[in-house]
Amino acid sequence: MTETIEERIARVTFDDKGLVAAIVQQWDTREVLMLGWMDAEALRRTLTSGRVTFWSRSRQEYWRKGDTSGHIQVVRGARLDCDGDAVLLQVEQVGPACHTGTRTCFDADDLDPVVGPDPVDAS
Amino acid sequence: MTETIEERIARVTFDDKGLVAAIVQQWDTREVLMLGWMDAEALRRTLTSGRVTFWSRSRQEYWRKGDTSGHIQVVRGARLDCDGDAVLLQVEQVGPACHTGTRTCFDADDLDPVVGPDPVDAS
Repeated sequence: MTETIEERIARVTFDDKGLVAAIVQQWDTREVLMLGWMDAEALRRTLTSGRVTFWSRSRQEYWRKGDTSGHIQVVRGARLDCDGDAVLLQVEQVGPACHTGTRTCFDADDLDPVVGPDPVDAS
Repeated sequence: MTETIEERIARVTFDDKGLVAAIVQQWDTREVLMLGWMDAEALRRTLTSGRVTFWSRSRQEYWRKGDTSGHIQVVRGARLDCDGDAVLLQVEQVGPACHTGTRTCFDADDLDPVVGPDPVDAS
């Protein structure tokens, strides 16, 4: 028997603000494009419409990605993590994902970490 | 002039609990492995030690990934997003990333979305 949309959404553990983190990944190249936030209604719209909708924490409103910029995200897949508090969305990204014009929101700022040794030495 | 570790950490916008979301990605295959949380000290340890350390919200303690399981994450890169509130870590994952034994934390639960139309039709 196929689960209803409400049964699927009921498996999500939303935080104390009613939100869940949504990682957005280009489905074929596997680039991580951005991290957004969704409440139950944004997730419902995303899972049922084929277009990614977030909840904007700064503007306190729904935000269907690309409605103003044209840089839409078309849904190709959606997964929930093992403890139910993160969503991975696989999308077809049209144009740059980032409002700054870069392909992903992670392109501009390198935190320049110390790179670890090979696992055989680190274990 | 090279930035200090404190200057880099100062660019991060931590939430009202002092945490930032950290997406962990296998550096070569680009699989999204998991989402964890870091406070400033967990991020400092991650950026300076070559091993990924989280803040466990459920246990309220630092958690260096793999110390009990052996499934360590060796740091290969770290990026901050455009608004400073999400980190993307590229790692070499030893063994399964998920405590359930699957490769990633997103392997088990398909949210079965409606797949969107091709972008040319959706724009």
